[in-house]
Amino acid sequence: MKTPSALPLYAVVEAEIASSIGDGSFPVGHQLPTEDELIQRFSVSRTTIRKAIENLSGRGLVEIRRGTGTFVAQPKIIQEMTELTGFVEDMDSLGLVATARVIDHAIVAADDDVARNLSVNVGTSVMRIRRVRLASGVALSLDETYLPREIGEKIVSHDLAAEPIFKLLEQRYDIPLIEAEYKLEATAANDDVALALAVDVGSPIFLIERTSYTADNRPIDYEKLHYRGDLIRFRTRLARRKPVDR
Amino acid sequence: MKTPSALPLYAVVEAEIASSIGDGSFPVGHQLPTEDELIQRFSVSRTTIRKAIENLSGRGLVEIRRGTGTFVAQPKIIQEMTELTGFVEDMDSLGLVATARVIDHAIVAADDDVARNLSVNVGTSVMRIRRVRLASGVALSLDETYLPREIGEKIVSHDLAAEPIFKLLEQRYDIPLIEAEYKLEATAANDDVALALAVDVGSPIFLIERTSYTADNRPIDYEKLHYRGDLIRFRTRLARRKPVDR
Repeated sequence: MKTPSALPLYAVVEAEIASSIGDGSFPVGHQLPTEDELIQRFSVSRTTIRKAIENLSGRGLVEIRRGTGTFVAQPKIIQEMTELTGFVEDMDSLGLVATARVIDHAIVAADDDVARNLSVNVGTSVMRIRRVRLASGVALSLDETYLPREIGEKIVSHDLAAEPIFKLLEQRYDIPLIEAEYKLEATAANDDVALALAVDVGSPIFLIERTSYTADNRPIDYEKLHYRGDLIRFRTRLARRKPVDR
Repeated sequence: MKTPSALPLYAVVEAEIASSIGDGSFPVGHQLPTEDELIQRFSVSRTTIRKAIENLSGRGLVEIRRGTGTFVAQPKIIQEMTELTGFVEDMDSLGLVATARVIDHAIVAADDDVARNLSVNVGTSVMRIRRVRLASGVALSLDETYLPREIGEKIVSHDLAAEPIFKLLEQRYDIPLIEAEYKLEATAANDDVALALAVDVGSPIFLIERTSYTADNRPIDYEKLHYRGDLIRFRTRLARRKPVDR
């Protein structure tokens, strides 16, 4: 094979395969040729092929399924995380179609977390709504929403497969959202999450806990958003403190 | 057992165990009594105990190890993500001691990702520095740092187990950091990351890709920070867009 410029061999192989993925010759879900086939095609060593595949996997372009082979991965959505937005707004700005499947809603007793986040006593009745949120037909997130009971009972009288809760709060019930606290973590899918999102138990989940506040700093909506880690990245920008503050 | 107020039984059990964890009766790493012992102690059903344990696990207070038992989990660090800060600054503000173990540094050819993030051509020589960052002795993050070659060679002349790169850039080489782009995702530990952080392959990893910019919007430092998902959460606040913009 020709080795242009100063690139090491693995980087040439990596770039070739990345380019085949980029131009659609290897579409999403396509199985890559086997190691032996790639060794033949590129006339390089097994170590070189493995390094190239490893890098492609690190870049999220391919997915190595042990014992099966290497497949072209679904590219991750990049979602801005710079202001408080709801799922439908997020999907709109990505050009994706947001839909929802309501799993259930119920009055439940606030546990420690819910109580702290909604500023109520432990054991207080609150409304819990569970939905699967889909992006152009793909289950992207399992959302658990907790609302104070009174507003929760109004919200569940609507068709939550069609109407976003943020929109109902703001436009129908005149409860403006001002800001939210986000807690972000990487976790593993438990049975419930795996079932809802059709992934394996233990798969990476990007968990967002979000408490949204209305006027007078009053918490009005506490959510646990379990996003499929293999499908999404979040992007933000942060400024450095001014030297004078340090 | 006494069942105060309107709490369902599982919530009472949950609160009791949470309180034993909170007051230190059950310290980190402590194995919880078995299901049978808890059934006896609280005089409730197995379903109730399981629901309580499940909730405690969901709250990150305990860790269920299949076939072994349930153990009190290490509480997650909550780190603010509201401005561009380095690891040492982050640990300082948490009251933890930051140390580093340098794995290696090397001149490498920029792959697609590195090239795009440092605004250089693919194949350009850049400095790669790999470090394990520790929080009070615990390996918390595997950091890969990419720097333009010229500044990179200056940086690696210092003792990077002791000196933070941000500090060297800003104070020693007069390269002020202005802001950074962050990309956040949940992923699973590969062999390298698992080895560096002493976790199982496939464990949840909170991956931060961060490109820091100096004056004139020039990218100066591209990092891939692989944080142990079981040890950390990130917190930020975001404001709702003004209605006038919608």
